[in-house]
Amino acid sequence: VGPPQDRRRTVVPIVPAAAVFDLGRGGDPRARPDAALGREAVEAAAGPAGAAVPARGCVGAGTGAVLAGGTLKGGVGTASVRLPGGVVVAALAVVNAFGSPLDRTTGALLGTAFVPPGLVRPAAPGPRAAALIGATIAAGPAGPGRPAVPPALNTTLAVVATNADLDPARTRRAATAAHAGLARALDPAHTLLDGDTVFALATGEVPVGTEEHVAIHAAAATALTLAVMDGVLTATGVRTPGLDVPAYADLVGAGG
Amino acid sequence: VGPPQDRRRTVVPIVPAAAVFDLGRGGDPRARPDAALGREAVEAAAGPAGAAVPARGCVGAGTGAVLAGGTLKGGVGTASVRLPGGVVVAALAVVNAFGSPLDRTTGALLGTAFVPPGLVRPAAPGPRAAALIGATIAAGPAGPGRPAVPPALNTTLAVVATNADLDPARTRRAATAAHAGLARALDPAHTLLDGDTVFALATGEVPVGTEEHVAIHAAAATALTLAVMDGVLTATGVRTPGLDVPAYADLVGAGG
Repeated sequence: VGPPQDRRRTVVPIVPAAAVFDLGRGGDPRARPDAALGREAVEAAAGPAGAAVPARGCVGAGTGAVLAGGTLKGGVGTASVRLPGGVVVAALAVVNAFGSPLDRTTGALLGTAFVPPGLVRPAAPGPRAAALIGATIAAGPAGPGRPAVPPALNTTLAVVATNADLDPARTRRAATAAHAGLARALDPAHTLLDGDTVFALATGEVPVGTEEHVAIHAAAATALTLAVMDGVLTATGVRTPGLDVPAYADLVGAGG
Repeated sequence: VGPPQDRRRTVVPIVPAAAVFDLGRGGDPRARPDAALGREAVEAAAGPAGAAVPARGCVGAGTGAVLAGGTLKGGVGTASVRLPGGVVVAALAVVNAFGSPLDRTTGALLGTAFVPPGLVRPAAPGPRAAALIGATIAAGPAGPGRPAVPPALNTTLAVVATNADLDPARTRRAATAAHAGLARALDPAHTLLDGDTVFALATGEVPVGTEEHVAIHAAAATALTLAVMDGVLTATGVRTPGLDVPAYADLVGAGG
């Protein structure tokens, strides 16, 4: 729903939409969503009344998400960054990327260096886990016992939201800036095989000056890096007739 | 100079141009470049006959470059990535960014996790050096004895070049993809205070198929991350009446 466009404060009913590519990874690809399913999804995403954090991992749009060329399970992640003055910038990501979230040398998450001071960083895996992760990715999606996942079906979708009083142009710029967060969490990002999309919204509660826009845009990128990392870390392995893919956390745990 | 546009192989003489913001950091801001200076600059950049790598650090367009809000000296850096099949993707960057190249927790270079396996990674600074680096950046450009550098004067310029046979659209896409390399090496990147620009060119020597474009675009991003890191690492501290800024390498060395 768009912001008020004129003096009468008319709301223009534009509803942005996007979908991840996950057909053929289980379920019935002929199923079509309808209004009732949409309502159910919104209510499920909102969670129980009072829940501070929405469900993450392999839920909702993240149910069939994979990444790293179809070798790792993806999911939904979320994170937020607080700035001085009461501005909060939050991000939600559905991580279904062609790229990998991992440092190819250490197996640590690529975004680690961008985690702001004061927040807990995910530990790098030990040598055995790093070797297991590297071998899993190198084996490709059609490894032993695993059905092939077409690598061309990738889309990472994200929403960044802030309580700052950004006008439409600055809100749009926040979405653009947040793409840096995808580039930091995934390598490669924004490829010809990805449909990476970021939506941005601003609730307008906290007035901000022009000089604060740079910090808000930077926070949008950081929040999205953290949200992608969260989606990778909260995903759980799936073994069904339609999809058989381990999650990063499983491999870190199995590698000791 | 543009590629041939028609059957007669006419070359369209378009010369792209960009400039970094470094006025007021020494020299005479009223000086104007002319054709003779341009020729001299090109000949100096080409280096002595047979030189494999152009001069880096505080040379040419990097002479007055600073970064991290004017607290660290920037410079010119270069790097290249080789792909199977003979494709090379190289990048050259003039690092004059608002953003910082450093992990705020460890003082290591942000791009470290994106250094491909097999290439040497810059070592993270020890705790004393990390503390010194953090204090230097926190002190701001107007630290004791240092003239203030206006933080709004920032531009990181880069060129990515490949020997692959990319058409104009795919070459342009390589420039777009390389912006991910800026986002990985600098935080924040692409701010309202930066004029970040990437040019791309393809010499067309090595024929490539559509399926190789993703790898070439990914390599463009990686090469640019490495080039920015190189520009940060090869920069040397400057202490003149117009500019008094330490370099990252100086601080790592001084911190032990």
